Amino acid sequence: MSTDRENLEHFSCIGHSVSRVDALDKVLGRALYSEDISFPNMLYGRVLRAGIPHAIIEEIDTSAAKAMKGVACVLTAKDIPGINRYGIAFQDQYALAVDRVRYVGEPVALVASETDEIAMEAVESIRVKYQELPVITNPHQALAEGAPLIHEKGNLLLHSKVRKGDVDSGFSRADVTVENTYRTHTVDHAYMETESGIGRIDEHGNIVIWSANQCPFRDRRQVAGVLGIRENKIRVIRATTGGAFGGKDDITVEIHIGLLVQATGRPVRLVLDRQESFLSQTKRHAIEIWTRWGATKDGKLCSMEGKVYGDKGPYAGLGAFVIKKCGIHLSGPYYIPNIKVDSYSVYTNNLFGSAMRGFGVAQAAIAHESQMDELAERLAIDPLEFRLMNALDQGLSTPTGQVFYEGVGIKATLEKIKEVRLKDSSLRDNLEKGTKTKRKGIGIGSMFYGLGYGFSRQDIGAATIEICEDGSVILRSGEVDYGQGSDTIFCQIVAEELGIRYDDIQIVTADTFTTPNAGPTSASRVTYVTGNAVLQASRAIKETFRSVAENLLGEKDLVFVDQEIHSELHPDKKMSFKKLAWECHNRGLQMVQTAWYDNTTNDVDTETGQGDAYSAFAYASQLAEVEVDTETGRVDVLRIVSATDAGKAINPSNVEGQIEGGAVMGIGYGLTEEIKVQQGSLKTRSLGEYMIPTSMDIPRIDPHIVEVPVSRGPYGAKGVGEPALIPTTPAVLNAIADAVGVRVTELPANLENLHRLIREKGEGPK
Amino acid sequence: MSTDRENLEHFSCIGHSVSRVDALDKVLGRALYSEDISFPNMLYGRVLRAGIPHAIIEEIDTSAAKAMKGVACVLTAKDIPGINRYGIAFQDQYALAVDRVRYVGEPVALVASETDEIAMEAVESIRVKYQELPVITNPHQALAEGAPLIHEKGNLLLHSKVRKGDVDSGFSRADVTVENTYRTHTVDHAYMETESGIGRIDEHGNIVIWSANQCPFRDRRQVAGVLGIRENKIRVIRATTGGAFGGKDDITVEIHIGLLVQATGRPVRLVLDRQESFLSQTKRHAIEIWTRWGATKDGKLCSMEGKVYGDKGPYAGLGAFVIKKCGIHLSGPYYIPNIKVDSYSVYTNNLFGSAMRGFGVAQAAIAHESQMDELAERLAIDPLEFRLMNALDQGLSTPTGQVFYEGVGIKATLEKIKEVRLKDSSLRDNLEKGTKTKRKGIGIGSMFYGLGYGFSRQDIGAATIEICEDGSVILRSGEVDYGQGSDTIFCQIVAEELGIRYDDIQIVTADTFTTPNAGPTSASRVTYVTGNAVLQASRAIKETFRSVAENLLGEKDLVFVDQEIHSELHPDKKMSFKKLAWECHNRGLQMVQTAWYDNTTNDVDTETGQGDAYSAFAYASQLAEVEVDTETGRVDVLRIVSATDAGKAINPSNVEGQIEGGAVMGIGYGLTEEIKVQQGSLKTRSLGEYMIPTSMDIPRIDPHIVEVPVSRGPYGAKGVGEPALIPTTPAVLNAIADAVGVRVTELPANLENLHRLIREKGEGPK
Repeated sequence: MSTDRENLEHFSCIGHSVSRVDALDKVLGRALYSEDISFPNMLYGRVLRAGIPHAIIEEIDTSAAKAMKGVACVLTAKDIPGINRYGIAFQDQYALAVDRVRYVGEPVALVASETDEIAMEAVESIRVKYQELPVITNPHQALAEGAPLIHEKGNLLLHSKVRKGDVDSGFSRADVTVENTYRTHTVDHAYMETESGIGRIDEHGNIVIWSANQCPFRDRRQVAGVLGIRENKIRVIRATTGGAFGGKDDITVEIHIGLLVQATGRPVRLVLDRQESFLSQTKRHAIEIWTRWGATKDGKLCSMEGKVYGDKGPYAGLGAFVIKKCGIHLSGPYYIPNIKVDSYSVYTNNLFGSAMRGFGVAQAAIAHESQMDELAERLAIDPLEFRLMNALDQGLSTPTGQVFYEGVGIKATLEKIKEVRLKDSSLRDNLEKGTKTKRKGIGIGSMFYGLGYGFSRQDIGAATIEICEDGSVILRSGEVDYGQGSDTIFCQIVAEELGIRYDDIQIVTADTFTTPNAGPTSASRVTYVTGNAVLQASRAIKETFRSVAENLLGEKDLVFVDQEIHSELHPDKKMSFKKLAWECHNRGLQMVQTAWYDNTTNDVDTETGQGDAYSAFAYASQLAEVEVDTETGRVDVLRIVSATDAGKAINPSNVEGQIEGGAVMGIGYGLTEEIKVQQGSLKTRSLGEYMIPTSMDIPRIDPHIVEVPVSRGPYGAKGVGEPALIPTTPAVLNAIADAVGVRVTELPANLENLHRLIREKGEGPK
Repeated sequence: MSTDRENLEHFSCIGHSVSRVDALDKVLGRALYSEDISFPNMLYGRVLRAGIPHAIIEEIDTSAAKAMKGVACVLTAKDIPGINRYGIAFQDQYALAVDRVRYVGEPVALVASETDEIAMEAVESIRVKYQELPVITNPHQALAEGAPLIHEKGNLLLHSKVRKGDVDSGFSRADVTVENTYRTHTVDHAYMETESGIGRIDEHGNIVIWSANQCPFRDRRQVAGVLGIRENKIRVIRATTGGAFGGKDDITVEIHIGLLVQATGRPVRLVLDRQESFLSQTKRHAIEIWTRWGATKDGKLCSMEGKVYGDKGPYAGLGAFVIKKCGIHLSGPYYIPNIKVDSYSVYTNNLFGSAMRGFGVAQAAIAHESQMDELAERLAIDPLEFRLMNALDQGLSTPTGQVFYEGVGIKATLEKIKEVRLKDSSLRDNLEKGTKTKRKGIGIGSMFYGLGYGFSRQDIGAATIEICEDGSVILRSGEVDYGQGSDTIFCQIVAEELGIRYDDIQIVTADTFTTPNAGPTSASRVTYVTGNAVLQASRAIKETFRSVAENLLGEKDLVFVDQEIHSELHPDKKMSFKKLAWECHNRGLQMVQTAWYDNTTNDVDTETGQGDAYSAFAYASQLAEVEVDTETGRVDVLRIVSATDAGKAINPSNVEGQIEGGAVMGIGYGLTEEIKVQQGSLKTRSLGEYMIPTSMDIPRIDPHIVEVPVSRGPYGAKGVGEPALIPTTPAVLNAIADAVGVRVTELPANLENLHRLIREKGEGPK
């Protein structure tokens, strides 16, 4: 069954920028973030962090802390009742350090006390005797013969490969080759709300935790293991969350809260301050990418190879998948017949690298888009045309040899950028307005992004829809809306399918006791995967309702629109959805449906990396216009033009919001943000030192939505969360190169670095 | 698919008396009843009740109340934003009286204030000017020509009929006839917890109400209508409930809480005190039953007719169905070829009659069991044998002409009583130990009870089962466990089906936002209907799991037992349920299933009452042994022997608990409990005046469970909640007749009545 309006080519709710379901709650200040939730008799939790990057623990003396008035409990590893090992894919993390610390943020002890001040004092009073170990500060050092082992199994966490065609024969046909090493830096998610949560024991003896998280179900599993209790005795609920961007994809505070609640039997709140968040929580990996590309003189890419060294820091988290994804995407949204990439996830004693918006592809795109621009320059082809000449298309194989016959949107995004560039005279005019010290330039950044997890990793969505007796709807899904807008999207889908008002849907999400597990919010998969579960549940309900309406109206050609069901042939034959709901209820018909959508793919061959890795890709291109001050190295981004292939924009305003937020994040990533680490120690300790773009730094952003539908997506929709960010940084870097002829291969392109590069080069070519 | 252990004729969890899921919470005092829930800034609600039974409201002056310090709001009918009419089947009730009051408990105004004391004072300060109307105190007066109309549509709410065969021709074959009029009295549910609840506005602007209720979903519908908002903006949650017995089947405090929360925006608690509960809340109807039965001299019932006049009081509630059910069941669990019954639900100005455990059949059984004993005496046949001679059986038609071919358990219950009577010499011996003033007697009571609603009334159950990644289970159902034990039963079903530990199931119930609507807890339908939904959901999950296990183990003949899956042929081929859950999760397989079970039947012919009214019946028989003090009229019940056809006792201890509780309630109903009403005014105002049996009054109770399975019930189970109570009262009345030769036709058989009857008769025949 198709959506009734679909054939009419107009939707009542899909494609409309309805206001978000959470808008009012947030504007009125009534939304409850973890820190807004409190309970009588509540304790405050604090964590003692290692503070040194690599050491043997010889002794932990908590006696002073335990003796302090107002301290309810002090816990170390030996107090853990369950298994003190966890991790999503690799169980290499410790809830509390046992005999060793592997990075500065390593948790060593927990305190819960009557006030936060006492907790801080108690933490400071704990004495730990360390025997320091050599600090491994980069992957090469970690992989060197005889390097000290951070984990017993060795410092190499994962080596993954892409082997497509024959790169040597490919390069033998190349007329030009470009070879470079790119070094991306460590950045933080820098969400408004740091990691936080609160837990308590409910009236049935279960442990309940409200927290800022991306997947309460996976967090539950990890809490259960460490606490030594069954998963169904732990209830994890997403509190309203002030940003996540992958930083709350790994578990953050939940295990520690669970341990403190379990030990004290009292409510415990645990909120990380910014410095602790910087120190201990996951980061976007610093990745070193060496890559060589070859093209023929007629502008066709013929071969590429690469080596990716990801600095994991001390533990796996989701990081091995990040580095792998970086390698898989290193050839960009282009058809290249011969590819060889090796990716290495390597343990070090730096900060903990794991998921962040872009998930390895943000780093890959910096490399592949720089490569594309350099090749275009060498071949004297317009960089945008060069991209169009090589862009992936239906029938052309991806790096893993996968071929799609629909929904390949990269060309459409490039065409949109081209159209804007041609039409918008200010872009051309501006370029000519540079002065000797203020150089203007434009640059293009493109990307593709495998939606969802791929590689046979479990990738499911689920939703339950229940129709009330008056035709209003309750939608339940375990999916997390941490601000990206999925709750709104889901309600739009239900409204569209049932032909009812968007406001008539109540959504309940992300509570392990009351909503079905819909997997994590990550990998730009939420609309694409869980959106389908919502769609299927809606359609299942509609089937039941349709049959009753057919019976009552004596008509077969019924449509559900405008809160009514009517016959297309005889429009006067109609009834309200409300009335129909009541009739269905009275007949004992099924008013609730649970749907499950499985997006789990097959795995690829481990030796070659070949196979159908993803069920679909998302695509985006951006143009950045910059002005570079050659005297200071300062870059002003003047404008971002984005063309994002949303497949189908279910809520255009929300897609635009993603694009705008992504662009700002991409600018910060490229130019100013940096978590500085020296010999494993954190040097960036506050948002004052960590330069995220302010409102004054944000340029005009033109968010164009391109729609190249993919049949598996709901209404053709693809994810846009990560595609919004990934093209920005390379576009800005390419614009800088355009402006001053300097290619930044070691990020960020901040004043210091750019100033140095410009000086090294002498004045730019313009 | 059958349960794996079913064929082995032993279950791992079904049929075992596991301890109840709520036992620990209640024993430890941590279960939260509505009154245990509080919120900051909470107000206390109070209701002004009419206090007079029938009057026109001329004026309501709330000015003094509104002016009182600490009063947050005072509401009358004119403040109601939605539709001030509600009711489950007939919309004849008013949330607040508009221009008329129809009984003493009628709500007239609401107050919310900072303390309960202020609220009480404020209520007292409201001045209402009434113009009194004539009070209609019984159905005959109400139906008399020219009687004042309580409702515009007239005083007859419902007339329902049973017409089977030809009673005249039936009576023409009768050798003996017995004709009597029985008058049952008004009683209260007298639960430990009175009607109570608390409401607030949640962080999304929804109204949330926790209350002691039997169906949060139906309550939600009624609150929504009066408040004028959609059902999905109201969340009703069952708080732990201290008994309901039908008294919380109609809505109690929820609408008033909703109105006060809506008006003030603040949390409001509303708890009725016992006097208010007695005054205003629903009661078991006083019913007058005239009936005539005929039998042939060989002991075969040949004809019966009856007229049932139910005193509804002022409003319908569920009461019309109660009176109808009384009429349908008036011929008892016997095959009678010719039946004619007319039932009249009649409005009066007495207290509000509606649902109470037994639902009309408790009253019917008093009549039919007295009739049976009198006929047996006239025919000189042992009363138990006479019942056996006439008991319904497979292939014999019920009063509505319905024929069952399985699961007809009445004979089995009588045989069990017979067996006990024969075996237990103390029963015979005791009878001979009577003295002149202390007479002993025994009596039999039997009954049948249509399970569920029947008559095409919506009768559904629903459940969602989700398997956690570690194989522990979360079960969600909208069904209410108000103390009868259904949460435990549901967990047993899941444990049995999946072969896991009962403790490994977490159950979440009765919350309109988070659990699927499973219909009300009433009509002894919960195990029978919603139990099936739980069973189906379990089996759906099991199918998925089985296919993965078959694949992993390479075996087809798998059984799920002892937290393992193993091959029956090769028992060493096995894996743990926990491991299997993880494997299924990793494959992206569906871990959550929602099942819906529809027990809605067809309706019967309105003129004849003939049709397949119910999907099954429950059966029970009891024997009561009493000692009557002929000088005082005091009755001591010495023993109750109960034989209850549970179909399959899923939790024998729980069935026994139902039987014991039911028997105590039946004794109270027969002997001591009475809500006295004079001219519409309540005379019984406290539990001190309302004589429920104390622990000293409770006899030895032998709860025998008989199992005559019905294929539609889960594992053959039938409901036992109401069958536990219904036979007790007639058994006690028949035992009194046996002891002192006096038949009580006007209840209760309290000291006053029995003393009078014994005196009127002179000494009894023994």
